[in-house]
Amino acid sequence: MLFEKIAVLQADGTYLKDQYVGVRDSRIAWLSDKAPAEDFGERIDGTNRLLIPGLVNAHTHVAMTLMRGYGEELPLQSWLFDRIFPFEDKLFPEAVYWGSMLGMAEMLATGTVSFTDMYYFCDETAKAALECGIKANIGRGISCFDPTKRFKDLPAYAELKDLLATYHGAGEGRVLIDVAPHAEYTTRPDILEDAAAMAGEYGVRMQMHVSETQSEHLDCVARHGMTPTALLEKTGMLAHPLTVAHGVWLTDDDMDRLARHGAVVAHCAKSNLKLGSGIAQTTKLLNKGVSVAIGTDSAASNNALDMLDEMKVAGLLAKGVTCDPSAFSAATVLHCGTRAGALSQGRQDAGDIAEGFRADLVMLDLNSTPFCPSHAPLSNLLYASGSSTVKMTMVDGRVLYNNGEFLTLDIERVRFETQRCTNTILNN
Amino acid sequence: MLFEKIAVLQADGTYLKDQYVGVRDSRIAWLSDKAPAEDFGERIDGTNRLLIPGLVNAHTHVAMTLMRGYGEELPLQSWLFDRIFPFEDKLFPEAVYWGSMLGMAEMLATGTVSFTDMYYFCDETAKAALECGIKANIGRGISCFDPTKRFKDLPAYAELKDLLATYHGAGEGRVLIDVAPHAEYTTRPDILEDAAAMAGEYGVRMQMHVSETQSEHLDCVARHGMTPTALLEKTGMLAHPLTVAHGVWLTDDDMDRLARHGAVVAHCAKSNLKLGSGIAQTTKLLNKGVSVAIGTDSAASNNALDMLDEMKVAGLLAKGVTCDPSAFSAATVLHCGTRAGALSQGRQDAGDIAEGFRADLVMLDLNSTPFCPSHAPLSNLLYASGSSTVKMTMVDGRVLYNNGEFLTLDIERVRFETQRCTNTILNN
Repeated sequence: MLFEKIAVLQADGTYLKDQYVGVRDSRIAWLSDKAPAEDFGERIDGTNRLLIPGLVNAHTHVAMTLMRGYGEELPLQSWLFDRIFPFEDKLFPEAVYWGSMLGMAEMLATGTVSFTDMYYFCDETAKAALECGIKANIGRGISCFDPTKRFKDLPAYAELKDLLATYHGAGEGRVLIDVAPHAEYTTRPDILEDAAAMAGEYGVRMQMHVSETQSEHLDCVARHGMTPTALLEKTGMLAHPLTVAHGVWLTDDDMDRLARHGAVVAHCAKSNLKLGSGIAQTTKLLNKGVSVAIGTDSAASNNALDMLDEMKVAGLLAKGVTCDPSAFSAATVLHCGTRAGALSQGRQDAGDIAEGFRADLVMLDLNSTPFCPSHAPLSNLLYASGSSTVKMTMVDGRVLYNNGEFLTLDIERVRFETQRCTNTILNN
Repeated sequence: MLFEKIAVLQADGTYLKDQYVGVRDSRIAWLSDKAPAEDFGERIDGTNRLLIPGLVNAHTHVAMTLMRGYGEELPLQSWLFDRIFPFEDKLFPEAVYWGSMLGMAEMLATGTVSFTDMYYFCDETAKAALECGIKANIGRGISCFDPTKRFKDLPAYAELKDLLATYHGAGEGRVLIDVAPHAEYTTRPDILEDAAAMAGEYGVRMQMHVSETQSEHLDCVARHGMTPTALLEKTGMLAHPLTVAHGVWLTDDDMDRLARHGAVVAHCAKSNLKLGSGIAQTTKLLNKGVSVAIGTDSAASNNALDMLDEMKVAGLLAKGVTCDPSAFSAATVLHCGTRAGALSQGRQDAGDIAEGFRADLVMLDLNSTPFCPSHAPLSNLLYASGSSTVKMTMVDGRVLYNNGEFLTLDIERVRFETQRCTNTILNN
């Protein structure tokens, strides 16, 4: 496929006009203001079109689209114990499959090409990802409330081993399996040590909820005499590649630790606001050299899985809380939502538009009100257009969403089955 | 027109299924779960459709769509003096007409039926509003930097008199003219006194920027020994119906004053964040009994004019800064974006779905991913769908936007002319 005379925004905010972008197999094989001599097959007229790197949702629980709007405006404990946990108790594999597919459809339609997920019935989520062609780093959430059980006694451990054997690297590497301890307050130091060792043994990445709420952060200090991040360092979790989800209540020392070890913070601005968890210090994280990626968290707490919306709110919020309009620049927000996200998933060759990179691309319509006038296309993208002008989403060179149509899933059926599974759970 | 078997969300969040909504001339003449005996003409199948009250944008400068993305990430003073003011110096009437029309198109496509505007070349904005059929409260911004000039010596006064004579009540009341002193720091107490007297004389409403930034608020205290709101009370401005735009730095006393006099605060969350002005205390305002409406401010600082997006950010922000997920409930946010907005414009018979009210209606598509599953339609609307599922916008019983098409304006031409005028200004 060859995009002709198309505008391109690279991950660092560089804006290039009238480019030729050639895609061969799963990669970008040509990027130039000159037409290539070689034949790239189908030609796409790039007039009034903008190409951006595919967005990476660095933290979500995709199957929780089943609970979109279920448990609104409740305090976290009531949200969890009165609504989410009772609903999840009745979950079944098929529900996770359809809920995952619905979330993936939503992400594809809003320009997301890859996501990092933590949940259970993970084989269903992996199957849905392979079927629709989206990329995913999938982690079986590890928790343990039984003091007699060690890591290897947990069902989650057995499932994780199976997932690693069956799905790690599946779909030509589109699906990867992460080691995913749920959080400090749902595990123990020895579990974290063993999980970290396993990540090292398999050479895979880790993800974990860290300091999402103040009470969780302070409870850890009371319990262990150290912050959750200090505990991560002590248990060896920071010795391997780790995505820290939320990080709202990280201390300055915590941030320095994360920067030193190269851990990534997945910033989930909307979910943190909506659940009343607080506001992460994005600007300080970036200034301290911590890599920041962006995630939506689940539709149960967001209630969307729309990365451009998430990026907009993250940008606005950083400017507002610091009273500095230059904070978290649009170029940095774009980097966090694309390249930093891809790197947080261990995908070194993804998240930007350059020759040799994976052809994870999103095409938008510049001939639209949000892009008029065109003083600053990047600002128009983040703060006016959002996902409303997304025309095409391509993953590894394959078009999965085009002009309102999904090419690898039946959206009417996905919605029907998701609602049916939801009804089954509620009437059970 | 008769909507059959349609879901309805009223301004207070009440959700009614399978309703018949009959529109005769400019008003809602039937609302019931029973079909009417009378004939309302065209029938609209309401299956999988949701009707909400039309949204009211309580504070904007619509022609500033011309400056969408012009002057990004600058401190307020540099934004104003290096970008906005030099651009505005070169404005001409035709540019204001097209910029206004572009903004109105954007608002109609995102469910807004009425807006409160402060700018100049106001006759152009009024003409555009009358042509496209949207409602508008239009104020000629009043400022005065010449100590020898009184209110009646100002060009803005003469223009305001003309606007009142020509446009107040035009379009069967769709266009109203407000008295609009720009701000404390751009006027003087005697100007405010005279402006308030004029509003009383003509029986029209007022609007003014108040305590948008901390420096503006503190400068007023230094200059006058009182806050801007106290000065409003002293000059008689609070004796007439007033919309206070922004109100980010209002003190508790200020809020009590506004509540006592029934003034409305137009909360502009996104603009305040993006310009680094700060975060208004929405929850406290509401608790103190101040009426809160919602505005986008201009596309130069937002950069969209999308009320559902604005309402979402306002809701999220109130929850996040108070660390209380129940703060600024979805029902309250809906009320602020509809009924409270209509009342802030002096439109007593607008902003809700009930018999006798103006037929200002927005129809959305429930057969869509953001509304699936359907645990909580109001939350789905605010936090998942936003304007992405708007199918139809009706003002005073007249369909102005339907299924992606504008019925009273040529959007391709509007975009072309807006870009042309912008280029003329920049190349001048």
